[in-house]
Amino acid sequence: MKTIKLGIAGLGHVGCGLIELVNLQAALRLPGRVEISGVSARTKTRNRRVDTSSYHWFDDAAALAADPDIDVFVELIGGSDGPAKLAVEAALRAGKPVVTANKALIAMHGSGLEKLAQANDVDLMFEAAVAGGVPIVRVLRDSLSGISVQRVTGILNGTCNYLTTQMLETGRSYGEVLDEAQRLGYAEADPTLDVSGMDAAHKAAILASIAFTADLDFDKVSVRGVDTIELLDLVLADRLGLRIKLITEGLATKAGIICRIAPMALPLHHPLAQVDGALNTVRVEGDPLGAVTLTGPGAGAGPTASAVMGDVAKLFTPTARSPFGRAAHHKVRQFVAADQTERSAFFLRVKLADRPGALASLTEALAAHGVSVDKLLQDSADDTGAAPVAIVSHVCSRGDIDAAAAKVAALNTIIGAPQVIPIDLAY
Amino acid sequence: MKTIKLGIAGLGHVGCGLIELVNLQAALRLPGRVEISGVSARTKTRNRRVDTSSYHWFDDAAALAADPDIDVFVELIGGSDGPAKLAVEAALRAGKPVVTANKALIAMHGSGLEKLAQANDVDLMFEAAVAGGVPIVRVLRDSLSGISVQRVTGILNGTCNYLTTQMLETGRSYGEVLDEAQRLGYAEADPTLDVSGMDAAHKAAILASIAFTADLDFDKVSVRGVDTIELLDLVLADRLGLRIKLITEGLATKAGIICRIAPMALPLHHPLAQVDGALNTVRVEGDPLGAVTLTGPGAGAGPTASAVMGDVAKLFTPTARSPFGRAAHHKVRQFVAADQTERSAFFLRVKLADRPGALASLTEALAAHGVSVDKLLQDSADDTGAAPVAIVSHVCSRGDIDAAAAKVAALNTIIGAPQVIPIDLAY
Repeated sequence: MKTIKLGIAGLGHVGCGLIELVNLQAALRLPGRVEISGVSARTKTRNRRVDTSSYHWFDDAAALAADPDIDVFVELIGGSDGPAKLAVEAALRAGKPVVTANKALIAMHGSGLEKLAQANDVDLMFEAAVAGGVPIVRVLRDSLSGISVQRVTGILNGTCNYLTTQMLETGRSYGEVLDEAQRLGYAEADPTLDVSGMDAAHKAAILASIAFTADLDFDKVSVRGVDTIELLDLVLADRLGLRIKLITEGLATKAGIICRIAPMALPLHHPLAQVDGALNTVRVEGDPLGAVTLTGPGAGAGPTASAVMGDVAKLFTPTARSPFGRAAHHKVRQFVAADQTERSAFFLRVKLADRPGALASLTEALAAHGVSVDKLLQDSADDTGAAPVAIVSHVCSRGDIDAAAAKVAALNTIIGAPQVIPIDLAY
Repeated sequence: MKTIKLGIAGLGHVGCGLIELVNLQAALRLPGRVEISGVSARTKTRNRRVDTSSYHWFDDAAALAADPDIDVFVELIGGSDGPAKLAVEAALRAGKPVVTANKALIAMHGSGLEKLAQANDVDLMFEAAVAGGVPIVRVLRDSLSGISVQRVTGILNGTCNYLTTQMLETGRSYGEVLDEAQRLGYAEADPTLDVSGMDAAHKAAILASIAFTADLDFDKVSVRGVDTIELLDLVLADRLGLRIKLITEGLATKAGIICRIAPMALPLHHPLAQVDGALNTVRVEGDPLGAVTLTGPGAGAGPTASAVMGDVAKLFTPTARSPFGRAAHHKVRQFVAADQTERSAFFLRVKLADRPGALASLTEALAAHGVSVDKLLQDSADDTGAAPVAIVSHVCSRGDIDAAAAKVAALNTIIGAPQVIPIDLAY
């Protein structure tokens, strides 16, 4: 396939984000061309941020799923049952690959849908269902198929992590922070799925099923949320050196696979303890790897749509993919050398001879090349009479700092070579 | 293919690690069976930690690469030219897929080898060449093909990161820490490739080529290492709120792709500032994703061999891979519910009525169920007369703590429900 025609069911935030991404595909690295053939949603008339009038409209998602004009069915309806499940089943039965962001559907019916997909020899892909833009599904399934997984832990609900982070940082109650999160759009109007732990549980169960080649049996998953966590708990735990977070865990035991979601108290040096705010993170531990951690945006239209697109990209069928991921239609770009006009702040360190005027001669040399000082720290001279000076410059060009450093190096008040290191102020 | 026969050239640490992994493959999640058909190395007689006597021996790696008995050629010789390059070219010409861990080869000759692979319609895979066990190559190429990448930054040399981390932590000089790292096996006897930045540069150039569909032109890459970094620089930067690390960067600019490796000073809140020790980390920023970060072991026989195996796993050819990554021969495991015998430390928080004996009744209730106290923090009573108490227990069973909490809840000296949260002490 050099062109893939999508049928997209569900035109909420993620659906509209996907259409925007299809429209911008020249900036992506897809192996071929993606087109949208048909769309479906609950209501046709609703005002959406993208124009869908040029796509074939289907009132019934299952009819779209089986439409001969589409190559791939993209399910963004949501919900574990109802139209989403019917449509996905219809697509698989019609021999169409399915790409879905629906964690509830896969968690509740993944085993059955897997059998249906295999019986029809088509792909069922759900990278976007777990941790949004963090590509953990395919990493765990494919890239890490050469390790024996012991444990998969994670922070898989950004809303819960945001709530507990904000409560501790601002000293406000669960209710106050939840109200604010709802106003800011970080929490749903009905936050139950998130705060009860159920959303994280869906994702964790999917990961455990992949990691341990286990039949996904959601009834065995133990689920506790953050809705009983009080500010007091976070504060007292903090004073005891512990950070309370909603943690998901999949664990291989002799009895079988344990999957649970619960608030856990983490020592500050724990690898998940410092993941704050709305981020998602997944940590896979296994032999002979050790552990790998992936962190990124777990939700949102853009990250989720890009994960859907990554799945679609895998459905193009040149047998051997270009090693560097380049397709024939890609405009190949060139490496260029970094140049001297590039601007940055710099860390400049010199050793000054311990005599009058040494510091003045340094700052004059800098000023002569337009390098101005943001911070300066001079320490006492050491036994050899060398006084270390460190400077954080204001933003200047690489050319200016290099010229200034060359001038400084030539001063007879300077010992040894100046050290020039760019500062990454992008964060 | 249901069985893949490997020809492995290079029997150093990684080669032996791969053979061990092949022998343990029942514990992995490979889609089929992996066998070793032939091996090649500089010397046949060398004492190795694995027995290679049952494999067909080749003195010449290029002869192994073209041997009709192998399905896939695995190149673990190393070096950008010489026998590694000759053997990889021979394999591709013979129509054999190649899996390599050789960063120098791909960085220096990637563009030419890509053309050769495409001309022969075979895969050239090098997940293990960049960041060892961190699966960034395929994530960037495939999973993130639906984003427009702006910038790829990383810490791609564990030796350099270990050196700068240790210098700052222990206050020792570059030379002292390097000596120790060599004794401990964290640095090579000849550390030049690492400390000069060249090793990180090879990896960064490969990532930039993938991220930006750019022709890999290593001559344009700017390379500086950690060999000029003094303890003084790290200490002064630290006092100015900056952490100096060897950072790799690939950046899309109007003029072209800039790729550079240099010590950079990072503010403490910078996403790469807290990655310490021998870890590798890669951060990919792009639209509409935001940023995703992968962190893990960047070197070592186990992680590198598992990355090689992950590439090999992709060469099995059922057209549609099972959604959860299960092959027909996999023993499918079952989810089980977490049980009450599981042991952990616990964070227990209660509110005590502010009257004599309240604390004693609490600690007696815990002791009666075998829950002993590691730390206890009691605060003054609030306006309502409730005094919060937080306890970190010693390790006990979930059943014990639940029974103790139930008994505590029934005390008339307790206000509201006790909060019980497990503590993850695994780290």
